[in-house]
Amino acid sequence: MEVGFIGLGIMGSRMAANLLARGFSLTVHNRTAAKAEELLRQGARWAERPAAAAAKADVLVTMLADPAAVHAAALGKEGFLAALRPGTLWIDCSTVDPSFSRRMAQEARGRGVRFLDAPAAGTKGPAEAGQLVFFVGGAAGDLQEAGPLLQAMGRSVLHVGENGMGTSLKMVVNLMLGQAMAAFAEALRLGEALGLGKEKLLETLLGGAVAAPFLSGKKQKVLAERFEPEFPLKWMAKDLHLAAQAAFECAAALPCGAAAKELYSLAAAHGWGEQDFSAIYGFLGRAPAGSPPAGRASAG
Amino acid sequence: MEVGFIGLGIMGSRMAANLLARGFSLTVHNRTAAKAEELLRQGARWAERPAAAAAKADVLVTMLADPAAVHAAALGKEGFLAALRPGTLWIDCSTVDPSFSRRMAQEARGRGVRFLDAPAAGTKGPAEAGQLVFFVGGAAGDLQEAGPLLQAMGRSVLHVGENGMGTSLKMVVNLMLGQAMAAFAEALRLGEALGLGKEKLLETLLGGAVAAPFLSGKKQKVLAERFEPEFPLKWMAKDLHLAAQAAFECAAALPCGAAAKELYSLAAAHGWGEQDFSAIYGFLGRAPAGSPPAGRASAG
Amino acid sequence: MEVGFIGLGIMGSRMAANLLARGFSLTVHNRTAAKAEELLRQGARWAERPAAAAAKADVLVTMLADPAAVHAAALGKEGFLAALRPGTLWIDCSTVDPSFSRRMAQEARGRGVRFLDAPAAGTKGPAEAGQLVFFVGGAAGDLQEAGPLLQAMGRSVLHVGENGMGTSLKMVVNLMLGQAMAAFAEALRLGEALGLGKEKLLETLLGGAVAAPFLSGKKQKVLAERFEPEFPLKWMAKDLHLAAQAAFECAAALPCGAAAKELYSLAAAHGWGEQDFSAIYGFLGRAPAGSPPAGRASAG
Amino acid sequence: MEVGFIGLGIMGSRMAANLLARGFSLTVHNRTAAKAEELLRQGARWAERPAAAAAKADVLVTMLADPAAVHAAALGKEGFLAALRPGTLWIDCSTVDPSFSRRMAQEARGRGVRFLDAPAAGTKGPAEAGQLVFFVGGAAGDLQEAGPLLQAMGRSVLHVGENGMGTSLKMVVNLMLGQAMAAFAEALRLGEALGLGKEKLLETLLGGAVAAPFLSGKKQKVLAERFEPEFPLKWMAKDLHLAAQAAFECAAALPCGAAAKELYSLAAAHGWGEQDFSAIYGFLGRAPAGSPPAGRASAG
Repeated sequence: MEVGFIGLGIMGSRMAANLLARGFSLTVHNRTAAKAEELLRQGARWAERPAAAAAKADVLVTMLADPAAVHAAALGKEGFLAALRPGTLWIDCSTVDPSFSRRMAQEARGRGVRFLDAPAAGTKGPAEAGQLVFFVGGAAGDLQEAGPLLQAMGRSVLHVGENGMGTSLKMVVNLMLGQAMAAFAEALRLGEALGLGKEKLLETLLGGAVAAPFLSGKKQKVLAERFEPEFPLKWMAKDLHLAAQAAFECAAALPCGAAAKELYSLAAAHGWGEQDFSAIYGFLGRAPAGSPPAGRASAG
Repeated sequence: MEVGFIGLGIMGSRMAANLLARGFSLTVHNRTAAKAEELLRQGARWAERPAAAAAKADVLVTMLADPAAVHAAALGKEGFLAALRPGTLWIDCSTVDPSFSRRMAQEARGRGVRFLDAPAAGTKGPAEAGQLVFFVGGAAGDLQEAGPLLQAMGRSVLHVGENGMGTSLKMVVNLMLGQAMAAFAEALRLGEALGLGKEKLLETLLGGAVAAPFLSGKKQKVLAERFEPEFPLKWMAKDLHLAAQAAFECAAALPCGAAAKELYSLAAAHGWGEQDFSAIYGFLGRAPAGSPPAGRASAG
Repeated sequence: MEVGFIGLGIMGSRMAANLLARGFSLTVHNRTAAKAEELLRQGARWAERPAAAAAKADVLVTMLADPAAVHAAALGKEGFLAALRPGTLWIDCSTVDPSFSRRMAQEARGRGVRFLDAPAAGTKGPAEAGQLVFFVGGAAGDLQEAGPLLQAMGRSVLHVGENGMGTSLKMVVNLMLGQAMAAFAEALRLGEALGLGKEKLLETLLGGAVAAPFLSGKKQKVLAERFEPEFPLKWMAKDLHLAAQAAFECAAALPCGAAAKELYSLAAAHGWGEQDFSAIYGFLGRAPAGSPPAGRASAG
Repeated sequence: MEVGFIGLGIMGSRMAANLLARGFSLTVHNRTAAKAEELLRQGARWAERPAAAAAKADVLVTMLADPAAVHAAALGKEGFLAALRPGTLWIDCSTVDPSFSRRMAQEARGRGVRFLDAPAAGTKGPAEAGQLVFFVGGAAGDLQEAGPLLQAMGRSVLHVGENGMGTSLKMVVNLMLGQAMAAFAEALRLGEALGLGKEKLLETLLGGAVAAPFLSGKKQKVLAERFEPEFPLKWMAKDLHLAAQAAFECAAALPCGAAAKELYSLAAAHGWGEQDFSAIYGFLGRAPAGSPPAGRASAG
């Protein structure tokens, strides 16, 4: 099976490597060519443009940053959609919003291309280990065809419903993810400020009923206050934005989700965007070194 | 051991019943006498005033709604603090704020009374089953003495530090609890609005890494949209308020916690305060039946 | 000058009436035909489809609810854009987001049509009195041509910059509008709950330095707790959503704006969407009559 | 008339100077003695302790940072309340919360001392110019007596109601103040990010109906991005906290007010607390120079 793969960031590069390792024939494209080097050494072919990655593909996989990036790759100049042969299958693993997935499904259909939204739940580690979870929206037959490929990259594939429903579930999951991390960060900072030791706090909270299981995976980052990115904070801000957009479209209110979204946005504006989203703990607690000019004031 | 017990709400009545069942001799007081009836049948004695519950006590336990209620019982008219014999031990299991616990410790000390802040983590079910978790602040010797009594009501007793630290940890835990519930409710409502089935959503989310374990216990309430109180929403609003107060005192910011606090407050103002705090799911989604007069408007 | 006018809601119907009154020849279209009746009596012609309103137009004006509505009218089935003669001018007075305005400018340009984004600041009253303020983005020459038409509907026309900049300024203004109203409502509700009389509160606040001037216009609605729509709450929720979207695109954080947005969204979800946006005061304060099933609970 | 004056911060020092200038005989106290030097040169007498400022006073004025500071000065070691002669009048001009004012009124009454809560609306400039506005809670007779003294410091004295009501109104006013400033800052930052020129933005917004009048006084600070304190940001965070507390006590929800509170808290935690509260504009926009270690990441 000939696979085109577009988007070689933290996640995409590892997903593509797993496809190669399982014997899929891969043509890859990325905006920044350097990110492809390791894959080319492992046997992938390089496509200078999105369209070139699509030309011979039976299946095309995209793993891009956001709806704008997917739109550009699919429908922009030398986009891949016009280059896909009728009957081929496009699997979008990017995290986008449900309306966008449905729009892409429609664009694909208009060109005789089948479409699955199959956003990947998981971060760098699971991507590397082939342990992602895919939430899939689309036709059952298309999913059956995509099965071996998705199973090469993940441990679990969930058929959620028609096009857009995979993305919908991903929105919901990441909405919880972002809020759980922010709540944990606030709770830790409050606990520390109240005099509780950080290690004891982590132990108590992570072992208890109020902490989402994934938070245990953030323990070392929080302890060391080093936030090497597995899932960059800026993408969390983006995902929460997409959730807010989806919520607006279906008239759901997200008062707490919006607060989390803006907290991540503020952190990104203060320079934390490239770090892991657990760096929200850093942003909450750390005043920058040589910060604002000290206009002295006092009362009483 | 003679035990005075003040506060027979959802939690306190069950905690007191466990003490009785384990053979402690109990004198109980509650603002509303009717709540004591079952306990009196089980062998407890009635005290008409807080002071009367303290007169013969070796240990006095309080399980009250908030700092104001504790303050009134301890230091108000016929309060118990002046009635406790020097050397006795006061264990406050109420959820209050750390400053208040420290103030009570000082008031107690001033009268020769020893003090433990020992807020109970858990709701109605664990209270009934004697499965609460106690976070204790105070002297190790005092805790040792309190051990058998706390173990009669709970499955686990954690010595967190000096007076105020038990309460501090409880603040932190409930801050996470309230946010996790609100985030879950928003996520479910968004998912439903996006067309995902509620049962499938619950199954996926509760089985995954983004949901705090306690949320599984809310599944039936959410499914049935019936929120019989285990931990009333108004107390969650109160606990988040206390967390905000503690945060202010130690200069910690709680942007997401504050959003959750106000959401619960708004729900309480709309009549959901007496229901379980999982009723935040109800508030987010349900427009009241005969709601505002329909001033018609439209555009386009 | 032949004018096509699409969108006859609260605002559009009054704007179109002013154009008629000043002697412009008008062909109007609205999704719901009934809204056009009064204008037809005053001499306007009816167009069954957007395209029909465009056929003879020298200038086409749109005053629609949101980007989706504008997109549908312009580019949907029998949309007006393909029906406009090259060289004609499209003035979009709708409140949309800057990216959308720029996209429409581009779509127009692609068909040889000139474009101005000219969102109207003001509500029902100013629309009726021809006292709107227009924030215009686009070429100076196009604005000069549009001048007489805009002046027939408003008292002031501000050339902000190129396409998209009129909309940008409108976003910013409505972001302040929505927040000022919400802050005022919260302050009033707090003041009343603290025992301050509503009339005295209104007098003190509206006469002082902390209340935006427009708030005086909401005094009667707040006093009477009747919120006949001048600017429906649901459009405020929409405008704040568009501001959040624009903010995301340019990496600005809106922590307070987002809280206001979600408050309006929640109010809309509870049935207040069709009323004036000052009804946020109603939502904050009024518990619905026969609201949630009373699961009784209490403590102490 | 012998006046004791406690609290010589930004506001208090200027208020005391106006009393001196109008011929009142003044004994002053401040935690930091250095702040009194200028006043001593102008004829004030120094009191080493709060009690010493009260000994000969007919009226005692306090202008302190928060409830804790007032409590310490009044009831702490060598506090002034026990030192005031029966029948004297205590005027608290500090911004505190209504419950606290009522508690102080009660403490005063218990010692035969009369009490007015008379918080001062205005910042450094009006304090210096004797142009403050006082919101007074207490007995009409007491206010009549206090009249000349308050008029020496302010341009307007409003009798709001009984004890606590002056403070209540101040809460409400500052709640609007803090939110208006934060909304303005967000709007400006959004506008700038969208490409609107800052000067034009300021001109348009400040001249329009959506900006509270006081915002014009912040124009120069925002333009220069220099925030010399007139009303330090940390006091705004405190006032919003007190408003949140008062709101909790009377079961009012403040979803937007809480977002503003947390934004100021976050800014304070990042080092902006001593600057004018308009520095929230600085916090929203400025990423610290050599901020977080750049953990590189990217996607696509």
